[in-house]
Amino acid sequence: MTGGRLAVVGLGPGAVAWRTPEVDSILAEATDLIGYSTYLDMVEARPPGQVRHPSDNREEGQRAAHALDLAAEGRSVVLVSSGDPGVFAMAAAVMEQLDRPDRPPAWEHADVTVSPGVSAAQAAASRAGAPLGNDFATISLSDNLKPWSVIEARLVAAAAADFVLALYNPASRRRPWQLGRALALIGTYRDPSTPVVVARDVGRPGETVSVVALGKMDPATVDMRTVLIVGSSQTRTVAIPGRDAAGVYTPRRYSEEPTALAQRTMED
Amino acid sequence: MTGGRLAVVGLGPGAVAWRTPEVDSILAEATDLIGYSTYLDMVEARPPGQVRHPSDNREEGQRAAHALDLAAEGRSVVLVSSGDPGVFAMAAAVMEQLDRPDRPPAWEHADVTVSPGVSAAQAAASRAGAPLGNDFATISLSDNLKPWSVIEARLVAAAAADFVLALYNPASRRRPWQLGRALALIGTYRDPSTPVVVARDVGRPGETVSVVALGKMDPATVDMRTVLIVGSSQTRTVAIPGRDAAGVYTPRRYSEEPTALAQRTMED
Repeated sequence: MTGGRLAVVGLGPGAVAWRTPEVDSILAEATDLIGYSTYLDMVEARPPGQVRHPSDNREEGQRAAHALDLAAEGRSVVLVSSGDPGVFAMAAAVMEQLDRPDRPPAWEHADVTVSPGVSAAQAAASRAGAPLGNDFATISLSDNLKPWSVIEARLVAAAAADFVLALYNPASRRRPWQLGRALALIGTYRDPSTPVVVARDVGRPGETVSVVALGKMDPATVDMRTVLIVGSSQTRTVAIPGRDAAGVYTPRRYSEEPTALAQRTMED
Repeated sequence: MTGGRLAVVGLGPGAVAWRTPEVDSILAEATDLIGYSTYLDMVEARPPGQVRHPSDNREEGQRAAHALDLAAEGRSVVLVSSGDPGVFAMAAAVMEQLDRPDRPPAWEHADVTVSPGVSAAQAAASRAGAPLGNDFATISLSDNLKPWSVIEARLVAAAAADFVLALYNPASRRRPWQLGRALALIGTYRDPSTPVVVARDVGRPGETVSVVALGKMDPATVDMRTVLIVGSSQTRTVAIPGRDAAGVYTPRRYSEEPTALAQRTMED
């Protein structure tokens, strides 16, 4: 039996100009595209014969298993994520399936690869200036698969050590309170004037990127299509020539001890 | 006076197949390319008339100012980074120049933009499987511009909160001991069997990506062209069909308290 292929790819954050040529060729050669229907809709039409398997945005395990089944049958399958498939996306879901104790022997016939993409926080950062210019922590606020206590511990650790924070999956209809709680925790360690980059639909029609002071953030304005970048103590606004909105950057140089800083802020 | 343009772009981690079409068009339209000579050498020849300004890999502030000067003269200037210019690269250096109290008025005539790219850790992750599949901290081990005490505090915070760690600039001839110290600190919170992805020259000729247990890492094998990904307590190896080397991934699901885990590890 001749095996097929499963390529787990990231489209980047929406704009075709941010999609890598590697992902483009893989999409062009595929017999089957699998993915959340919103992401499949971002892929232009291909030659006839290519089959699309749209799904909703849950059931990622089933989707990954389905992709491996098709690849094991000899198909050339592409599992489509937005952004980078390795960052809170389908690559880990595929690896979880491959790590199952009851992994189907037929899956040995599929070559599995992962192709990286520009992630949403990087695109948001590029629009704002350089907020990720120094050490940063990337955290998903979704507590669907991990306890909220773990997320809180990570937010506190990252805030106390003065990391910039890139926050994915900040809110959804079923997770309405988590972002407010997260911002309050971060606010224990940060000045209310700390710049926050609020980026929605980056690289897609209707993109908005704004800069809001941490103390003025309204969590109700944020949804699943938004990514947030919360500055460190060193993050500053800057006027960028040719751009109307304020820019934001985190300098490469660091001149203060984060522990001393966190203490000072809490004592203020 | 007609202003020019400064585009700060990332080539991605080396392979042309990972470079975005946006960056390709910007490079094609430029009158001047500025960058570390190793990165400029990665850009194919362009029509005659395009001027290259290679530099060594230091003096980033001067390089950024030079790029702004040329753009203010009306040139279409591209400042070239590898990876993502927003991650430990030239975008922050440009913003620092724009934030100077003595910023030259002529720079108002330059439109400044940033174009994102796939970063080295993402490319390394894609080769290994999905080690960045859950929350991760991205830290540069270079203490050229920030005190080593800040780096240690961040390493400890991220390790104790059970983040995956992506380590940039892990070692150089002038920074020989820092990586060993960093791995020892992380080892306080992690089992010696924790998988570490060691990726050198990803996407370039001679690429190597290996998986080494944390307790067996030899810092002397690591140089400036290497990026490391140190797993969390949950990161596992997995056999990936079609690949000889072990794969590594971090599951999306998290079932243990990081604090309890850190305590348990330290008491072992």
